[in-house]
Amino acid sequence: MSESGSGGQTGPVLTRVLHLLEAFTPQRPAMTLSELSRKADVPLSTTHRMVNQLIDWGALERSEDGYYRIGLRLWEIGALAPRGPGLRERALPYLEDLREVTRENVQLAVREETEIVFVEHLAGTSAVPVLTRVGGRFAATATGVGLILIAHAPKHIQDEVLNLTPERVTAHTVTDPKMLRELLAQARTNGFVISDRQLSAETVSVAAPVHNDRHQVVAAVSIVVRHGVTNPHLLVSPLLTSARAISRALVGSPLTPRPR
Amino acid sequence: MSESGSGGQTGPVLTRVLHLLEAFTPQRPAMTLSELSRKADVPLSTTHRMVNQLIDWGALERSEDGYYRIGLRLWEIGALAPRGPGLRERALPYLEDLREVTRENVQLAVREETEIVFVEHLAGTSAVPVLTRVGGRFAATATGVGLILIAHAPKHIQDEVLNLTPERVTAHTVTDPKMLRELLAQARTNGFVISDRQLSAETVSVAAPVHNDRHQVVAAVSIVVRHGVTNPHLLVSPLLTSARAISRALVGSPLTPRPR
Repeated sequence: MSESGSGGQTGPVLTRVLHLLEAFTPQRPAMTLSELSRKADVPLSTTHRMVNQLIDWGALERSEDGYYRIGLRLWEIGALAPRGPGLRERALPYLEDLREVTRENVQLAVREETEIVFVEHLAGTSAVPVLTRVGGRFAATATGVGLILIAHAPKHIQDEVLNLTPERVTAHTVTDPKMLRELLAQARTNGFVISDRQLSAETVSVAAPVHNDRHQVVAAVSIVVRHGVTNPHLLVSPLLTSARAISRALVGSPLTPRPR
Repeated sequence: MSESGSGGQTGPVLTRVLHLLEAFTPQRPAMTLSELSRKADVPLSTTHRMVNQLIDWGALERSEDGYYRIGLRLWEIGALAPRGPGLRERALPYLEDLREVTRENVQLAVREETEIVFVEHLAGTSAVPVLTRVGGRFAATATGVGLILIAHAPKHIQDEVLNLTPERVTAHTVTDPKMLRELLAQARTNGFVISDRQLSAETVSVAAPVHNDRHQVVAAVSIVVRHGVTNPHLLVSPLLTSARAISRALVGSPLTPRPR
């Protein structure tokens, strides 16, 4: 970012604002002023000044107990993200149908750089509990949706993902880059992928890509079932049907894969 | 905001960032760089520099057609707002029950200064169409939820709302400040309010307050029915039951009314 000329202060100030915002996480949704200053690595006096301005605008809220939280206005503006609620809204009827037909967990996710963000999760009737959370992020290659999204990502993203050694969560987590490349190749060839107990010893996911009307993969949909109870191969047909229906529902939408 | 001392640039830069973000609205979710610069009233060169930094971070996204939109990361952080998804998640089972029992439209809203923001809307089976939209804002006194939330707002907010002459949308929209004060008093005394065809000639809403565990009104729930078909008075009991159930579900939550 250029910091020369009259706009010299822009970069550093904006960086600090973004540090303040990203200090809030699902694990840490509320902080005191000094905690926020420490986590964001912004001096206390600057934090104080910026936070007051962010409160006036509605990006943050301060409750009576002295804790700061994300404000309603940021939610309202965040809700304009086409890859969040926009995508979710168009896909939801098909995801609900898929859940009704299979009675299993159904998920929709997109890629953000090398990570996977879950946009919707519908819990199946008496289905296996899953670890994912809407708005949560997970290492890409351990999930079915992640394999699909990385398989269709630009090469430099694939390389970056394969260079990170994935954490071995279960005995079945694939960590060997060569085997991962094979899984990605299979995902592209077959048009779907099965991720077998990679994230939990109990769960298997089947995932397929969702395309925009320029044939770009913009999201992935998956069904997560209990290992040994449901044969995942039987779910490929309904899953592919649903993924195509969602792709069709995206015609005319502005969705693109994130361009980096 | 203090602009003296070494942090002198903080205020104006942050103001510009917020202007860039608030230029995005439900009516205008995508803009070119020059449109964004114009709508935000930020010089083009500064817009360009800031937008690049916002894209790097994920607050904005740029698609191949050259349009800028809100990015997924802002949605993820906005989703941490306790008065948005946090409230919605706790209230949703009760809202769904209320919809099932009444088969009518059910809504949940909070107050942001003098305006009302809808946090959830569940459409009833073959119920009357309503004008509200999740994340949308409406003039307070023309809706049932607005009357409840303003009735329990600090006095300076009430005065501000009553000083704005509400737009007369239908022949039934109450615009006389004296009559509005009466409606607000009724809302407080009765513990519910009926807003009769104020926003559309077809709809009547019944609304009731939702409290946190410090007996503060933090939200309002309403049922919206077709005028002349359903007697709204028959819906008061299920509505109050539901509002109490939601209040109970908020015990231990950090929700407070916005403190200004």
